[in-house]
Parts: sequence; structure tokens; C-alpha cells
Amino acid sequence: MSTTLQGTPASSGIAIGYAKVLRTNIEPHVVSKIEPAMAEAEAAKFDAAVSTAAEELDAIRTKLLEDGKAHEAEIFEAHAFLLEDEELVGAAREKITAELYDGVSAILETAKEVAEVLGAVDDPYLRERSADVLDVGRRVARLLSGEEAADAGQDAMAGAGGATGNRAILIAEDLTPSETAGLNASTVAGFATAVGGATSHSAIIARSGGFPAVVGIGESLRDIRNGQLVIVDGGAGLVLIEPDAAALAEYEARRSAEGGKQAEYEAFLDRPSMSADGVQVELVANIGSSADAKQAKLKGAEGIGLFRTEFLFMGRDTLPTEDEQYEAYRTVAEAFGADAPIVIRTMDIGGDKELPLLELEKEDNPFLGYRAIRISLDRPELFKTQLRAILRASAHGNVKAMFPMIATLREWRMAKQLLEEAKQELSEAGIPFNPSMETGIMIEIPAAAMMADRLAREVDFFSIGTNDLVQYTMAADRMNPKLSSLSDPFHPAVLRLIDRVIAAAHAEGKWVGMCGEMAGNPLALPVLLGMGLDEFSMSAGSVTRARWLLARLDRERLQNLARAVLDVDDAADAKALVLREVPEVSEIV
Amino acid sequence: MSTTLQGTPASSGIAIGYAKVLRTNIEPHVVSKIEPAMAEAEAAKFDAAVSTAAEELDAIRTKLLEDGKAHEAEIFEAHAFLLEDEELVGAAREKITAELYDGVSAILETAKEVAEVLGAVDDPYLRERSADVLDVGRRVARLLSGEEAADAGQDAMAGAGGATGNRAILIAEDLTPSETAGLNASTVAGFATAVGGATSHSAIIARSGGFPAVVGIGESLRDIRNGQLVIVDGGAGLVLIEPDAAALAEYEARRSAEGGKQAEYEAFLDRPSMSADGVQVELVANIGSSADAKQAKLKGAEGIGLFRTEFLFMGRDTLPTEDEQYEAYRTVAEAFGADAPIVIRTMDIGGDKELPLLELEKEDNPFLGYRAIRISLDRPELFKTQLRAILRASAHGNVKAMFPMIATLREWRMAKQLLEEAKQELSEAGIPFNPSMETGIMIEIPAAAMMADRLAREVDFFSIGTNDLVQYTMAADRMNPKLSSLSDPFHPAVLRLIDRVIAAAHAEGKWVGMCGEMAGNPLALPVLLGMGLDEFSMSAGSVTRARWLLARLDRERLQNLARAVLDVDDAADAKALVLREVPEVSEIV
Repeated sequence: MSTTLQGTPASSGIAIGYAKVLRTNIEPHVVSKIEPAMAEAEAAKFDAAVSTAAEELDAIRTKLLEDGKAHEAEIFEAHAFLLEDEELVGAAREKITAELYDGVSAILETAKEVAEVLGAVDDPYLRERSADVLDVGRRVARLLSGEEAADAGQDAMAGAGGATGNRAILIAEDLTPSETAGLNASTVAGFATAVGGATSHSAIIARSGGFPAVVGIGESLRDIRNGQLVIVDGGAGLVLIEPDAAALAEYEARRSAEGGKQAEYEAFLDRPSMSADGVQVELVANIGSSADAKQAKLKGAEGIGLFRTEFLFMGRDTLPTEDEQYEAYRTVAEAFGADAPIVIRTMDIGGDKELPLLELEKEDNPFLGYRAIRISLDRPELFKTQLRAILRASAHGNVKAMFPMIATLREWRMAKQLLEEAKQELSEAGIPFNPSMETGIMIEIPAAAMMADRLAREVDFFSIGTNDLVQYTMAADRMNPKLSSLSDPFHPAVLRLIDRVIAAAHAEGKWVGMCGEMAGNPLALPVLLGMGLDEFSMSAGSVTRARWLLARLDRERLQNLARAVLDVDDAADAKALVLREVPEVSEIV
Repeated sequence: MSTTLQGTPASSGIAIGYAKVLRTNIEPHVVSKIEPAMAEAEAAKFDAAVSTAAEELDAIRTKLLEDGKAHEAEIFEAHAFLLEDEELVGAAREKITAELYDGVSAILETAKEVAEVLGAVDDPYLRERSADVLDVGRRVARLLSGEEAADAGQDAMAGAGGATGNRAILIAEDLTPSETAGLNASTVAGFATAVGGATSHSAIIARSGGFPAVVGIGESLRDIRNGQLVIVDGGAGLVLIEPDAAALAEYEARRSAEGGKQAEYEAFLDRPSMSADGVQVELVANIGSSADAKQAKLKGAEGIGLFRTEFLFMGRDTLPTEDEQYEAYRTVAEAFGADAPIVIRTMDIGGDKELPLLELEKEDNPFLGYRAIRISLDRPELFKTQLRAILRASAHGNVKAMFPMIATLREWRMAKQLLEEAKQELSEAGIPFNPSMETGIMIEIPAAAMMADRLAREVDFFSIGTNDLVQYTMAADRMNPKLSSLSDPFHPAVLRLIDRVIAAAHAEGKWVGMCGEMAGNPLALPVLLGMGLDEFSMSAGSVTRARWLLARLDRERLQNLARAVLDVDDAADAKALVLREVPEVSEIV
């Protein structure tokens, strides 16, 4: 019988495949015992699973290093070390031989115990390791239970249906760090998770890798069994289980139409980013590591609208030096050449991004907490190290600096003052930089949007961060699946703030970009173009599609639409209005 | 040597007294052992402390019941039961006799262990009991260590300084529920805590009881020793330790001037709430229980601008019935008589207010979570029970209903629809109510402020909740002491939203109140009056002061000030502007 589950759209596109349920991840575990006579054999099986896990980790790590993803590779190196840890592996083996646990129970229980101990210690670095221990425990448990890895080479069900190719749909509570880093388009068609929102880590990974995905489906996801035929409709946020023949045929047709569309989009790889009536905008990419810059250029981005530098700081034992940061920033600038804009955002630690090295206190509401510029202004040496590195990179390209989480004029002025000090220090040391490097701020806090007229007099540019702006404006945690209907940038309250920010910047002759998820949404493009947005920064995979759509739009004509959406009742009404007024969009979404 | 600590102003006024450090509360505990020969005597001392604790609890409970505070009394009844619990008291005694812990270590360690077990269970009701266990453990530990209670009758240091009277300044990490409920003006002059913000539970209790208080001082508070002379300057957020003679004299003069002022304010108890140029507004009170209504009327409130009904739901094993709620709402209405406005807000559970009965999931960012109207709309039976109770009370006075945490027009319409259903049900049952009862919403989410023009067409009134509005607009948890400079309603971004909301309501002929802490702030009154605010709802203790100030203000003249504060750089500039333009205010703050 066919069933359809509704979740949060995380990454658009249609994926059709057989379910690969990451069971060790999805179900609460109950300890199973074995007969005494089986203990030896179970222990031997356990040893074999540990070796296989080590081989898997090594293979993933090598592949990531080849792809230039050094940071992701480090995760797997840390996991490999854990497989040699007596307190984890030795203790689990002992649970088999002495307490007659079965292997899966033994490793999961031991991992849970070790993670709890680590989770309770004061050292924030050790505390963060508890997630790794659970991740490794699940990997071994999966191997023991005969499930395949998220990143395994072949789908066992492949023979059963030509329609699906041999790629799987991953079904999981959430994807672990190792699962997301190891996602491979040759074996995985898409995924669906029980938790998460449209801007969760898994959702961002899905979009940047082009995997159709639905998140935040809730407990009903547990009904899916391994090997069931599943359709993921990422744009609509639907998961169809065992669809009937008619639905399957319809989705296959849509998927192949999408494939054709993709080729149409790719024809726009090198064209100018220009509307039908000749308005030129910038279509640029959001990236999280310097290695992503080359890919972004290959996918048609004209530059970088958001380099999230916090990932340089995370998952390591020491802070990156000025030279290390300079190298990373320069690599990005050089990937694009002298004229392409490269916006480097100073670190946005805090919120959902922890940095144990800074020994920050645990907070009740981290999204409303001590994060980003609030930390940077309290630690001027840390901040100036980063500012000097950015300034040095500005000698190699059109580099701009951007401050996150600015709420007040005072914060902007303090940050600017520290930038001036960094310039002074470089000048005195005779180190080259661009003395007139553009410097701007994120508009992601309602207070900044309300004060945009005043801020616009002093900054060089704004970039609207819709992910955070939406969650503060609507008072709804964007990761909370219960509030997904509130987490929508089409709510007219949010559109009014965006409109206000663009008008305020233009009144002072400054440019405005957007680097939230909204910027890559085809439904939003006509509205934002009508409002006059100058720069759209998105996942690199969305750039050619945006350019294709842009070429079909007339900005002049969209100005009325941009006014009309400010006066509707609801997000749904705003979207319906766009679809009605801009038929080109319905070809995509 | 004199030292001055800076914290967050929580409740204005000057308190001078000797420090009573709630040591068991403030310091991390280290286990101390005793000699075997001492074990018997230590156990006997422990038994005596437990009996004394039981007597203390009984006395507090009786007093609270006499004051009509049934709900607070229940806390202490639950604590008394815990003193008979073998797992707590028996186990602690065993730690003394068998493991040679001293009594303080034994009870604190056992309480910690029991609280940890409770904190880890799935049942949310049991989980909440862990705070009570710690509270009781501290009470016994305090008695054992010879410290006096926060609520004890006499200050041991009283003889040492005539200047201080015999009232103490409490110094604590934070005040526990039992400490706040038992605060007694005859023994406590004021308090200072290490954690908390201006809108924390302790701060609200301080203001409603008229205790000068400073919160969020941080670790330096631990330097204060029992018996040191301390001045709490609640308005400035300062704590002076061992002040020199000059400072002491100055503060004594200020305190006595304040005393004189208080008498001046009280002369305004029964006067109309009218500005010097004849503009009449409403000065009403915020209350949390029906028992508070009488007090509020005695203190000069013309009605209730915010009845926080969630406290009817908290700390009990079953949900209140429709009849119980009806009685509570009717009691409030009848305390004031037929014409006085009584605004009853439907329950605002979630955020920092837990309700274990609803079995809500733990959230990463509860302030941005599933709370208030979001829960009510998902549980129509629960919500309609409350709505019917409010409607029934509307037959006994000028009762109005108000919905909290409205972000969208859709939420408002859904809530209104359920209200219509509740009316229909009452009509069918022939139960009387006011069919045209006014119904309004809180404006406390930036989205609602941005959409105020649209919402104003449909509601009967707005009440601006500045506590939440500030935290969402500034993206700063109001309980987080690291962000207290952002948690300020004078930031021009917040003032702009407030101004917008008032203008939008008036354009549709609707009235606007304010029930956040800002409404009772003398610095804010001139600005809000200038903007045209119609109703000011505050702690009952602030009403006569507000009326005194109002009589000295000219609304006409303040309209320019209300415009000017929208265009300053910063909260500090806005406040400075008010002080400069309205000299009357500086007599108070």
C-alpha cells in the first residue's frame, strides 16, 4: 500500500530508489543477550567488524584527501583512532565474552557509556568527542548487523527495479557527521531524515551536493523498511513509500524532465547574469572551505558572496594562525582571479556551531546567545589575527570583509575600529594589503534591519542573512521541526524587513546582497529582483538555474510584484502570488 | 577596603545592610570527612537539622496560606514531604554513619545524587522534582552549617551598625524557588545574585515585592563575606562592599530621600491617571495569581493589564478544570468591580516556563520554541477549556482575553475561531458570558510588530510585551548575563518597532497597552506617553510612582522627544536624551 509522508523541503529535485534504512541510527536500542556457547564466535565476528570499520574509515579518508577536503578527512582519522581505544573496543569485547551481550548491543552500550562520561567532563574539547564515539559505535554496529553503509558501493536491491538505477535513498533519524561527509552521488540518490529543518547541517549538505532531500519528517519515518521503493520529492517535502504505478510513472517523467532542464541550465554557465530587460546582478556562491572555491567557479559562480570562515576554526586542537588563515583566504581569491568579489565573513562561532577551544559556557538559548561578532569584540587579539589575514588576502583579489550578527551601530563601529588597528599593524610591518578594502555587515538580526538606514551611512555593503533573520523575526528556531511553518522567509513580515533593508542601502548608494538560503530559491528570485537586490549568494549548484531564470525575468515588471507580496496575509499567499505572476518559476518548482 | 561590583539593575531603590551569604547555594561543594568517634554526634545534629527544616517549612507554608498564596504554599508542602523521604534523608544519614561524611557533605551529595537520578528519568514531572530535592538539601545544609535562612527572623549582625537597621542583604548564586517565595521585608532589605537578567524570575519577584536588587553580577559576587556591610543600588545595578564613610552617608541620604518620595507617590493612590495637559491613560498591574489582584488594587492599580494564567497550570499534578479557572478569573474581576479592565492572557507555557504535564520535548532554544499560542492552537480542547473559563468570567466584569506569542495573521484567526467555538458551546449550554468581550494580542514577536497594520484591522487591542520583543529584536536571550547591554528596550531599533505598533493600532482606532517591564520604567514613561501609548501595565508597586510622574508630564511637549529617540545611535543615547529633556525623571532614577 502506498503511503506519503510530509516533511520539510530541504533540497529540491526528485530521487527514486530503494530505502536504505540506517537502523542503528534510527531506533532506540534494547540489549540482546547470546548463549554462552556463542560468545567466542560473537567476539570473533566483532573483531572482524572492527577491522572492516577501520578499512572503511581509511578508504573514506583517502578519498576525501584526494578531493582536497582535508578538514573532513580529519574527522575520519579521529574515528580510526577511536577504533584502537581499549575503553571503547576492549570494553565492548568484554561485554560480549563476560556478560554475553550480542555484538551490536555490546558496542552501542559501550559507546553510550563512554559518550556519557565524555559528555559530563568539564573539558569542552573532550565533551565534543562524545558525538564521535557514538558515530564510531554505530559504524561497527551497522557492520555487525549486516546493514550496508550509507557510503557503500552497491545497493543490494539494485536488481529489483530498473527504474531506480542502483542508487539508494537513505532513511535516518539524522545523518551523522561521517555520514554526511561520506555521501557519494554514485551510490546515494537522496535522503530523508526524521529531524532537522530547511537550514540544518544535513539540509545544507544535501543542497550543496545536489541530493534531493526531505528533513523533519518525524517519527513516521520509522515505518519505512529496508528495500521499500521510495520517492523523495525534495521540492515539495514529500516522501512516497511504495508508490503505485501511476505515481511512479509521473515522478519518473518529472525526474527526466528535470534532467533535461539541468542541461538547459548548464548552457548558462558562462553567460552574464542579466535579466531580460538588461539589469545585471551578481550570482555568487556560499562556501565553507577554501577547497570549495574551485568547485564554485566550475559551477558558474562569479565570485564568493559568503565564505564561512568558522569552519577553519572548528574540529582542531589549536586556533589557526594568521598565516594559515591568510593562505586559506588567498586560495579562494586566487581561484577566481583579480576582479571577482570575494566576501569573507569573520567567524560565526556559537549558536549551533561550537568551538571547544574558546571554552564558552553552555547556554540555555544558544541561537540568542554569545556568538559571532559578540565573541570577536570581546577577544580583540583573536579577531585582529583574522582581520590581518583577510587584509593580507586583499592584496590578491577583490576581497571584502563582512561582520556577522551586528545588532547595533556601536558593534559595527567597534569592529571597524579593530579593523583600522589591524591595518595600522600591517602598515607598520610593511605588509601589503588593499587599504580601501570594502567592509560590510550581515543583516540577520531584526534590530539591524530596523536600523538599516543608519548603518547604511557607515558600511560599504549589506548582505542579508535570511536563515537567522527569519528565526529571530518569527521567534522560531529554524532547527525545530515543530515550527517549520513559521520558518519561512516568505512571511510578509520578513519580506517587509528585506524590502526596508534594500531601500535603506540604495538610499545611501550602497549595494545589498543576500546570503541566506532564500537567495537560491527560484520562487524568491523574482521578488528579490523586483525589490532591487544586487547580489545573490547561494549554493554553487543553484547558480546556473538562477541565471537561466533571471534571463527570463523583467525587473521593471516585477516591481509591482515586489510591492504586492508585502501586503498579503501569509507566506503561502506570497508564494501563490509569485507563481501566478511569474509563470517561468513554475517550470522549476 | 571598599569595592564596587557592577551587575544588571533588577529592582530600583537603595538597600543598606549586612551581607547574608547563602553559602550552600553559592559555592561548589567539596566533601569533608569526620572522625569515626564523631559519627554519632554528627548524625544526631543531622536529625535535629532535619526537624528544624520541617518546622521552618511548616511555618512558611502557614504564613503563605494566610496571605492567600496557595500555590506558593504547595511548593513548601512538597518540600516537607521530601524531608520524610528515606532515599534522601535516610541515605544522607547513612553517609554520615557508614562513610563518615560530615552532615553538610552528606546531605548535599545525597541530594545531588537523587536529583541526578530524577533528572535522567523520562517522566517530565519527576524530572522537575530534581530542583526541589536540591532546594531541600540546601535548606538542611544551611541549618547544619549554622547559616541563617534567607527568611530567618533576625540578622546576627544587627547590633553592629545602627545605619542598617536589622535587615540583611542576601547574596546568592541565584535565589531558589523557596527563597524567593519566602522573602520577607521585615528581615531582608535587598539582594544581589551572580546570575540572571533584568527579566529573570528573581528580578520580577524583587520588583513586585519592592526589594532593591542587582542580578547577573558574575563570579566576583563570591568575594563577599558574611557580615560585610553592603549597599545595593538597584537602579544603577551597583553593589558596594564595605563602602567608606562618605559613600555610606551619601547612600543613606539618598535612601531617606527615596523614603520621602515614596510618601509623595502614595498621595497619588486614588487620583486619576492624567498628564499635566489632561491626557488620561490607564495605569494597571501585571499579576500572576488571583490572590495578587487585591494587593494590586490596594497599591493603586486601576485594573489588570496582564494576568499571567500559566501559573494556574504549573506545579500541580493535573490540569486545572474549567471551573477552577473560572473561579480564579472571576476572583480577579470581582476584586476590581464592574468597570475596571481585566486583561486575561491565555497560558504562556514553554520558553523558561515548563509544564511537565504537557510532556513537551526538551528544546535546544526554548525561547525560540514551541510555546504559548503555538501549543494552545495544537491542543484545542485544552485551549477552549481556558477560553470558556475566561468567557464565563466576562459575565462578572470588564474582562478581556489576550493571546500571547502571535506571529502571524493566521494564528490570530485560528485562535479567534476557537474563541467563537467556545462562545457557541456556552450559548448552547445556556451559560452567561459577555458576547462582545474584547479580544486582543500580545505584540512580542518582531513579525507581529512588522504586521501591526494588518493585525490592527482585526483585533480589539494590542499589548506590547517588551521583555520578549527586546530579546527577539536584538537576538539576545534576556536571561543571559553576557548580553545584558543588548537586552535593553531603549535600543532605537526596539523603540522604532514600538512606535510603529502604536501608530498602526491608532490608525485603526484600536487601543494599545504595554505589559513588559518597560511600562513601569520612569525613564520610558515620557517616551511612551509621547508616542501615544494608552495603557501601562506594570508591577503593582510602581503604579503610584508612575501616576506621580505622569501628572508632571505634558504629552504635547513629549511628541518631539518620542520622535527624537527613534534616531539616536544607541540605548544609552536614548536614555540620556530623556534625562536631558525631562528633568522630572531624574528625581526618580
